[in-house]
Amino acid sequence: MSKFWSPEVRELTPYVPGEQPRERLIKLNTNENPYPPAPGVEAALRDFPADHLRRYPDPESRALREALAEALGVAAENVFVGNGSDEVLALAFQAFFRQSRPLEMPAITYSFYPVYCRLYGVERRALPLAADWTVDLDAFSAEAGGAIFANPNAPTGHGHGRVAIAALLERLSEAVVLVDEAYVDFGGESAVPLVERFPNLLVTGTFSKSRSLAGLRLGYAVGSRELIEGLERVKDSFNSYPVDSLASALAIASLADDAHFAACRERVITTRERTRASLERLGFEVLPSQANFLLARHPDQDAAQLFVGLRERGILVRHFNTEALRDHLRISIGTDDEMTSLVEALELLCQAPA
Amino acid sequence: MSKFWSPEVRELTPYVPGEQPRERLIKLNTNENPYPPAPGVEAALRDFPADHLRRYPDPESRALREALAEALGVAAENVFVGNGSDEVLALAFQAFFRQSRPLEMPAITYSFYPVYCRLYGVERRALPLAADWTVDLDAFSAEAGGAIFANPNAPTGHGHGRVAIAALLERLSEAVVLVDEAYVDFGGESAVPLVERFPNLLVTGTFSKSRSLAGLRLGYAVGSRELIEGLERVKDSFNSYPVDSLASALAIASLADDAHFAACRERVITTRERTRASLERLGFEVLPSQANFLLARHPDQDAAQLFVGLRERGILVRHFNTEALRDHLRISIGTDDEMTSLVEALELLCQAPA
Repeated sequence: MSKFWSPEVRELTPYVPGEQPRERLIKLNTNENPYPPAPGVEAALRDFPADHLRRYPDPESRALREALAEALGVAAENVFVGNGSDEVLALAFQAFFRQSRPLEMPAITYSFYPVYCRLYGVERRALPLAADWTVDLDAFSAEAGGAIFANPNAPTGHGHGRVAIAALLERLSEAVVLVDEAYVDFGGESAVPLVERFPNLLVTGTFSKSRSLAGLRLGYAVGSRELIEGLERVKDSFNSYPVDSLASALAIASLADDAHFAACRERVITTRERTRASLERLGFEVLPSQANFLLARHPDQDAAQLFVGLRERGILVRHFNTEALRDHLRISIGTDDEMTSLVEALELLCQAPA
Repeated sequence: MSKFWSPEVRELTPYVPGEQPRERLIKLNTNENPYPPAPGVEAALRDFPADHLRRYPDPESRALREALAEALGVAAENVFVGNGSDEVLALAFQAFFRQSRPLEMPAITYSFYPVYCRLYGVERRALPLAADWTVDLDAFSAEAGGAIFANPNAPTGHGHGRVAIAALLERLSEAVVLVDEAYVDFGGESAVPLVERFPNLLVTGTFSKSRSLAGLRLGYAVGSRELIEGLERVKDSFNSYPVDSLASALAIASLADDAHFAACRERVITTRERTRASLERLGFEVLPSQANFLLARHPDQDAAQLFVGLRERGILVRHFNTEALRDHLRISIGTDDEMTSLVEALELLCQAPA
């Protein structure tokens, strides 16, 4: 605490990202992709002229927005890009959610959302999940100041289809509904095609998961022109050039390779289903997942102890020490070999006398 | 205007960055460096393994902070890094300047500062420059909620020395004094050595100018541990990983090459002084500059018309259409050839019948 801090800053409780260990571990804690980015990314990296770096990037990121628009089947003017989808989300909170009515979100969802609420002084209303741990879309109120959830949701992995999202958008027509699709490429159904019909829909996405580019920090939003313009107004009052020219060139190269993209996500999905079956054989209860992670609990094992035991064996997963989640482990999907090591380690840990 | 925007967002007046033209122009409008980044940057770009990009960066950017700390002669815990110094400045406004007393700044300085004030609801008190267009440090009040200025100042180019800054820091001991050193490497005196003595000093810097890396978006702040911690609290509530791993690797390579750094800034300084003399021969009044730009006015020529005439001749400079600056042109220092072209074009424009 410092007398120099702004009063609001004294009250912040920052987000805690998953650990980025320096030692070599099987890293299944931050939902990174186990496969490399498209070969074209490597080529673009080798070809990029270092001399270009002395110039500022295009503040409007036109080339990247055009490439994304083509990939997503929308117009470039409906696309916004930023320094990771975390930045895009933060700008969206500032642009849309500082309203007199509270922002509504599931009680269990991406844990950064409540952090943004504190940063921007946004009142939050947490909605209980349904009994099967899916996001209860009927719980959102038509009078909400805004609505946000991840779809597929984190860390549960369940995703709602487009028909259900459309019904929500219709019901909450006066509020911005932000659908965070960080994980959609691993089996979810994207709401992007609804953008044309619903001016209140903002969809966010990222290059960090299905595009294997977490290190580049690139995220985006898709929405009606008025929502994109709201994001641009905040961005242009915050940082004119959030996307660097090298990251932009590599992202464009990534978008050009559909085959690599499809192959990697298929491999992750196949490995996820195999891992889920293996964990169930060990007695775990595993939520069905459309994401690149599984949320699992064992009726007879302490999740915090399993976390520690795995870490001792060189395997890092995520354990959230909250009341709702402390019995669970969130396990990112790695390669087949990595998941075999995980299952073997868990088998040993579950057999050991408590 | 949209009903979906947060009320404050409707009132924003975004910053307008200098144009990034698509056509080939002699580009003297955004204070970029005319020389390429250090050769080691090119090598680091070629050597970077694309596969590393699938991992998130280190959220604490330890390697880059350590390299910067060594270059600046401070400890890594006194260094903060971000996505361009614009982002670092924005986070600093949020962390320190949302106070009950107004933030004080010169009436003429980096035009992004008033934009941040509107974004974060910070009241601003503008202090007139001294008669010679230098920042009047005596005008800052000991009761200020905070103080900010560029040193050397933009777009005037004058910089105060360390002794004057120390006196200000002593007098404003209850407020954060942010000294923006974006241009310091072109002849200014850095306040960084004062960080040890003054817990209220925050110095910001950038890789965009003297390091020829504007395209990478890398900025930093140096200050007491309590100020750096204030920035970290806001950053960790906004975006956990603002610095991508590739940009970090290239910046570290840049910091390793003192000789290239020194040679480029010497060339810019030499060209600046030669250009200043040439402009004075054409009748321009040119402020002495410790930066990589010159602010010039011609007693008999309309600056807006000169701007248009230069643009027609393929030369882009900056014209600020504000009452205080509309008689001036801000001219970035390019290569010797580029500046010769500029001077020749201005000579023709000044001779033409009005």
